[in-house]
Amino acid sequence: MLKKLETLTWVDDANFSKSHLQMIDQTLLPTELKILDCHTIETIWEAIKMLRVRGAPAIGIAAAYGICVGLQPIFAKGDVPSNGMFFDALHKAAKYLATSRPTAVNLFWALDRMVAKAESMVQLKPDLTSVSLMQALIDEAKAIHNEDRQICRSIGKHGATLVKDGDSLLTHCNAGGLATADYGTALAVFFAATEQGKKIHVFADETRPLLQGARLTAWELWQRGIDVTLICDSMAALVMRQTKVNAVFVGADRIASNGDTANKIGTYGVAVAAKAHGVPFYVAAPVSTFDFSIDDGSQIPIEERDPDEIRCGFGRQTALADVPVYNPAFDVTPAELITGIVTEHGIISPVNRETVRKVKSEK
Amino acid sequence: MLKKLETLTWVDDANFSKSHLQMIDQTLLPTELKILDCHTIETIWEAIKMLRVRGAPAIGIAAAYGICVGLQPIFAKGDVPSNGMFFDALHKAAKYLATSRPTAVNLFWALDRMVAKAESMVQLKPDLTSVSLMQALIDEAKAIHNEDRQICRSIGKHGATLVKDGDSLLTHCNAGGLATADYGTALAVFFAATEQGKKIHVFADETRPLLQGARLTAWELWQRGIDVTLICDSMAALVMRQTKVNAVFVGADRIASNGDTANKIGTYGVAVAAKAHGVPFYVAAPVSTFDFSIDDGSQIPIEERDPDEIRCGFGRQTALADVPVYNPAFDVTPAELITGIVTEHGIISPVNRETVRKVKSEK
Repeated sequence: MLKKLETLTWVDDANFSKSHLQMIDQTLLPTELKILDCHTIETIWEAIKMLRVRGAPAIGIAAAYGICVGLQPIFAKGDVPSNGMFFDALHKAAKYLATSRPTAVNLFWALDRMVAKAESMVQLKPDLTSVSLMQALIDEAKAIHNEDRQICRSIGKHGATLVKDGDSLLTHCNAGGLATADYGTALAVFFAATEQGKKIHVFADETRPLLQGARLTAWELWQRGIDVTLICDSMAALVMRQTKVNAVFVGADRIASNGDTANKIGTYGVAVAAKAHGVPFYVAAPVSTFDFSIDDGSQIPIEERDPDEIRCGFGRQTALADVPVYNPAFDVTPAELITGIVTEHGIISPVNRETVRKVKSEK
Repeated sequence: MLKKLETLTWVDDANFSKSHLQMIDQTLLPTELKILDCHTIETIWEAIKMLRVRGAPAIGIAAAYGICVGLQPIFAKGDVPSNGMFFDALHKAAKYLATSRPTAVNLFWALDRMVAKAESMVQLKPDLTSVSLMQALIDEAKAIHNEDRQICRSIGKHGATLVKDGDSLLTHCNAGGLATADYGTALAVFFAATEQGKKIHVFADETRPLLQGARLTAWELWQRGIDVTLICDSMAALVMRQTKVNAVFVGADRIASNGDTANKIGTYGVAVAAKAHGVPFYVAAPVSTFDFSIDDGSQIPIEERDPDEIRCGFGRQTALADVPVYNPAFDVTPAELITGIVTEHGIISPVNRETVRKVKSEK
């Protein structure tokens, strides 16, 4: 039985003003596993701001629950507040949470969805009480949470058909539960295969410069009892040559119309090595990751990050302070190196403009 | 004009008992450039032991000078000690220095050569004074130093013929002057090309886990005014795809009879990426690196190092303390991925059992 640790957990209480959100404080991983109890909207705002919760889907879910927590004070005295008071508080909460991470698309999407839900309800039934509206918003946040869980589970289910008992697999960065509802995308494949009773082994690239593989992926797999070996990024090619790596699974930041896939820096090198060793290379991502406004990978801009992520990786300076650095945040793996893309609707393989096109209707 | 900083410098004095060895304390690089004045054999022993001087050729040179420093006390009073006293002190010094890094082959080679030099001299001329023997040993240490310098220069000269003005090059780990007399092997190629007036740019892989690329290579190239860009190992493939990398140059730990080459972990992945992008991949190494007792790379054992080099890279724990780690110290690049091997005698290309065989007569 796999040990489960949910990134985000909503704790219901008969008196809903005492309900609250629990989250793993990801900034303390892997050396400390601390569950943060969020009873105020300020706590949730700070957690999003400080990356205690990270990953687009997880941020969206935290923000949705954040709305619910933000509405609780108006119910605290046991009164039933007026709908006017309710909507004032709702808009205020949404506006406030939106300032926590102004560039996170999923944050705005979730906040908009919560506000729209309450507004459409009173339009249909103007006599609804604020208590009913509040309950509906808690249910909506849970729906957002569950939908993401379902997407992860579906990706896991489809991806697991590619994994055989005894397989050795490799992943890069963290496309895991910590970034999503509880199951991840690439890691969902490993969790689903394990739940099916398949015994697998996973090599986790540490993923320089920010070490999401070492800090988060190795931790997640270890927590769930999966046989994991942490390696430096530069060891992936050797591992493919020395031992049988049956497949590589990675996540995605953005997928272009032709299947070219942007993901964490280093993914492309892993794909090149996989090709050279005849190892199948899979991307696991929800259909929301496809961006049909982008024709191919060459149009995806490569964001460059702070050189000190490389020069002063972990609090200690390990290179000259003024030596020039190139620090791209991600790279683009061309479709021809991708064996298949696993989505919640199935597996796209081979990957090309024609096979990717059908995702458009599934979005 | 390139700024030169010698890894090791012998400082002569008219009164040779005041001569001494200067070395760069490599443990402080790149944040501090400290020149260590070694006036006692104990200082040199400690410097070798604590990796203040590292790299096989550099260790051998330091040990040879260490013998000279170790003999100085018997001359301190201005007396001419007896030859018996001289040889007692010589054997004692050699025995002592041999304990500094018991697994360093070049250390023993240099110590043996120094002792043999003095012994062969008194065999030929039994009436030589200890002053003449001392001067001969200082000259012998300088000869060892100069020979290594010449080897590096020759490698640089041959390698530079492969570099064109305006080239962008890539290297992994540190095959530089800090490990040798003053010029390195792979880096010798860059230094020689630059001295010929060719303008080059070099991408330096940081080289996890011990970051020799970030700490030493980027520092050496920067010190000598070469246009260098530091990258994470996982960025090498992207760089080859994005920009024109004209060639890769790396060093070698051991080269088998068929040309398979063991070098720092990550070299193989770079070679695979170079092949995929049509980038020539060169190894630069002295003929002393060839081991004809080894038939091919499969016979080279892969040393595994402390998992905490990966789990606690820079003084901070970045992965679970008990998560399994695979930490091979080096990998083997098969001959078929190597465009050429640059030695002090020329360039071996293509690299195969037949072309490598001729090195045997040059050893």
